[in-house]
Amino acid sequence: MLMNKNISGMNLLFNPKSVAIIGASEKTDKLGSHVMNSLIKGGYKGKIIPVNPFSETIMGLKAYRSIRDYGKQIDMVIVAVPAKLLSEVFRECADSGVKGVVLITAGFKEIEDSSGIELHNTIAEIANKAGISVIGPNTFGMINFHASLNASFTPEFSRVKKGTIALVSQSGGISHLFGFMAIRTNAGFSKIIGLGNRLNIDFAEMVEYLMDHDPDTKVLMLYMEGIDNPGRLMEIFKKHRGKKPVIVNKTGSSEKGDQASKSHTGSMAGRHEIYLGAFRQTGILAIDDTETLLDSARALAGCPKLEGNGVAILSGQAGPGMAACDICEAYGLKIVDFNNHTQERINENLPPLALRSNPVDMGPAWYDADASREIIKAVMEDDNVNAIMLLIMFASANVGVVNGISSLLLNWKQKKPLITCIFAPPGIWDNEMEHLEDSGALVNFPSPERAARAMASLWKYKNAIDK
Amino acid sequence: MLMNKNISGMNLLFNPKSVAIIGASEKTDKLGSHVMNSLIKGGYKGKIIPVNPFSETIMGLKAYRSIRDYGKQIDMVIVAVPAKLLSEVFRECADSGVKGVVLITAGFKEIEDSSGIELHNTIAEIANKAGISVIGPNTFGMINFHASLNASFTPEFSRVKKGTIALVSQSGGISHLFGFMAIRTNAGFSKIIGLGNRLNIDFAEMVEYLMDHDPDTKVLMLYMEGIDNPGRLMEIFKKHRGKKPVIVNKTGSSEKGDQASKSHTGSMAGRHEIYLGAFRQTGILAIDDTETLLDSARALAGCPKLEGNGVAILSGQAGPGMAACDICEAYGLKIVDFNNHTQERINENLPPLALRSNPVDMGPAWYDADASREIIKAVMEDDNVNAIMLLIMFASANVGVVNGISSLLLNWKQKKPLITCIFAPPGIWDNEMEHLEDSGALVNFPSPERAARAMASLWKYKNAIDK
Repeated sequence: MLMNKNISGMNLLFNPKSVAIIGASEKTDKLGSHVMNSLIKGGYKGKIIPVNPFSETIMGLKAYRSIRDYGKQIDMVIVAVPAKLLSEVFRECADSGVKGVVLITAGFKEIEDSSGIELHNTIAEIANKAGISVIGPNTFGMINFHASLNASFTPEFSRVKKGTIALVSQSGGISHLFGFMAIRTNAGFSKIIGLGNRLNIDFAEMVEYLMDHDPDTKVLMLYMEGIDNPGRLMEIFKKHRGKKPVIVNKTGSSEKGDQASKSHTGSMAGRHEIYLGAFRQTGILAIDDTETLLDSARALAGCPKLEGNGVAILSGQAGPGMAACDICEAYGLKIVDFNNHTQERINENLPPLALRSNPVDMGPAWYDADASREIIKAVMEDDNVNAIMLLIMFASANVGVVNGISSLLLNWKQKKPLITCIFAPPGIWDNEMEHLEDSGALVNFPSPERAARAMASLWKYKNAIDK
Repeated sequence: MLMNKNISGMNLLFNPKSVAIIGASEKTDKLGSHVMNSLIKGGYKGKIIPVNPFSETIMGLKAYRSIRDYGKQIDMVIVAVPAKLLSEVFRECADSGVKGVVLITAGFKEIEDSSGIELHNTIAEIANKAGISVIGPNTFGMINFHASLNASFTPEFSRVKKGTIALVSQSGGISHLFGFMAIRTNAGFSKIIGLGNRLNIDFAEMVEYLMDHDPDTKVLMLYMEGIDNPGRLMEIFKKHRGKKPVIVNKTGSSEKGDQASKSHTGSMAGRHEIYLGAFRQTGILAIDDTETLLDSARALAGCPKLEGNGVAILSGQAGPGMAACDICEAYGLKIVDFNNHTQERINENLPPLALRSNPVDMGPAWYDADASREIIKAVMEDDNVNAIMLLIMFASANVGVVNGISSLLLNWKQKKPLITCIFAPPGIWDNEMEHLEDSGALVNFPSPERAARAMASLWKYKNAIDK
């Protein structure tokens, strides 16, 4: 594996001023055409250099026979040509001083088992000798949202918002899943990286880079099937414990899943429990569900640190508040008693027989924006409260409630974590909630339980790094 | 409580030819205005009779001073006036032969504790004597999608599709949550019913009615906080065991959640474990998460009966298949070995080093619709396979795959359960997937784990009723 002394190479890989696409094409049955679309439609601002010996121009850009033929400096190369051409391509990259490659080409194994491994070793040798950082082979690519660089064969990744979550994944399918979930949940990503078959960049290298050299990334989200050198990765986890949250989804808890993972990644998957134990020891959160993983990443990226387990639940209707209570308590969060002053202020703003202690049913204050704000403010200022959950289901009668409280939330700027489930049919409150979230006022989820589990992940993370 | 001898009254309540709205209004700060909108915009075809002594017309319809003033037969009445007017309103309903009331009015308790109970008892006596079935008080209302009858204060419920799931809920907030989830997941409902404070219709009456007298309902989904007479409900569950699936979300597993539930519903919530035990004994599935509850209802409503635990997982990419494996095995489903003939047919259509045994990675067959169809067909015909999961993440290169397999899936019509996670950015495959689902070809979910948990619910239901 490539040592991380090569930081400048990694920086070029993610922030190139020029990108060549070897295998560029206009034919939609070629991955090279989708890669071209990703770069162009994704708004990449650097120089795009299509390489294809059989074309004069591709998508309006002058094409070159080879990178040698181009002649000038190329910072990064995306390779989407058949495996048999790779030795030659890598030699050319080495000769031309290329320092970063995204190697989409798959099919090493399909040629024939031994020759596939031989080829893998040949190009690894060239790359390592020349100091070329390689993402792949057998990857969909990677995206650096902060550079508008979509170096993948899926242009639709560019619909994901720029943010602070980095995904490092061993599965292209799961990366696409997270990308599309992100579009639907307003999650923002810094990078999405498909490791593929890991020529010289594995989880260890990538985690170290994201921890030490990527200010755009605040939270690391890993999808892992099996790795070759778990000890090395655990060392890196330990070294960076508490620096940035790391959350991992490790498949293979089942017999068939584990078998499939071994043959898919060609690496030792190993006993699931051993991984989980190692994660615990190194301050890593393991989460066995993709939606919960992304929800947790969103909360960790979008909320300040949770300092204690005291949670206030304010709901527009009683039911969702109770559902959140059940989840919170199951994960060790406490639905705290308010201090006397807070309780008095709430009592002034709600009728006697409403649920006025925690969890508070704010339903009766619906029509009264002042009362709603007073209750929320009182709870914000209560020292017993470490975090707030706000759960409001739309009804035609409460359509104004989000506008009524948004200035308060915007000004508060999450002095403590504020996690919400403010939920309406599509088209209602969408813009308001997006604005609140993009301003850092809250993180919103599509069910009370998902909101509560996200809150629980903040608490689990605090415990994981305090140990 | 009202005995279910009064079936004709319940039928009128859900299928009225005429509906009066007492408290109809054009002022948006009155619930009566939202109810009017629900009826009109929801496309109700019967006669709408606004009742308000201070208006000549409301939303273009002639208004009446009272239902007596209207003079003719009224099948159902929606009441949204202050509590102090209720005795008079109920006497009038009784005199006019009204048999069904949706009683939205809340605030009985807020007047003062004892007089609130007194009022509750007074109107209960009138209703029971006159044989009036009452949904409420303190409810958002109910919707019968098969009669385009939105008798609630939330017009947006009419955006939910007509289907075969009935929701009976003790929480208005949770009902709204499910309604908006349904809009987002293409779930179809027969009825959504807010029980409120249960004057004479409780879970028992409603479950019995839906089981015996509502052919539109195939699956019952209950949200429960606490009930007064659990024994009676359990008797009704037992009596109808195996007739239609019943799935329950019971809150109150936590201390604070339980406390809140007691004061919210005014009923004994009782120990959570006792409920869970009773559900198990009566063939009811208890599910403690709202999203999973709706996912399970969709699977039970949209799939044929699962006959055994043998599952085939076919995925367009390896990762999602493994994630589904892990969940399936955790719930007692088996990722079965295919019979030899099936395996041969798969091997003919996938390269040697792909994952060709269960879970199958169909990735290499992406570009070849014939190969994809052949593999799916082989698995459909395998007697070892009781159900199929199909997991495909969009990528620009596989955009044609859904069209390539849809005829096959439409023609097969789920001879065995077909649960999918076919997932793309919004706007891609939406129409195709909606068509497949509405045609009964499959039930689709937004993550591989949610798809697998839905499959697990089919298996849990089989076990629950086979016991």
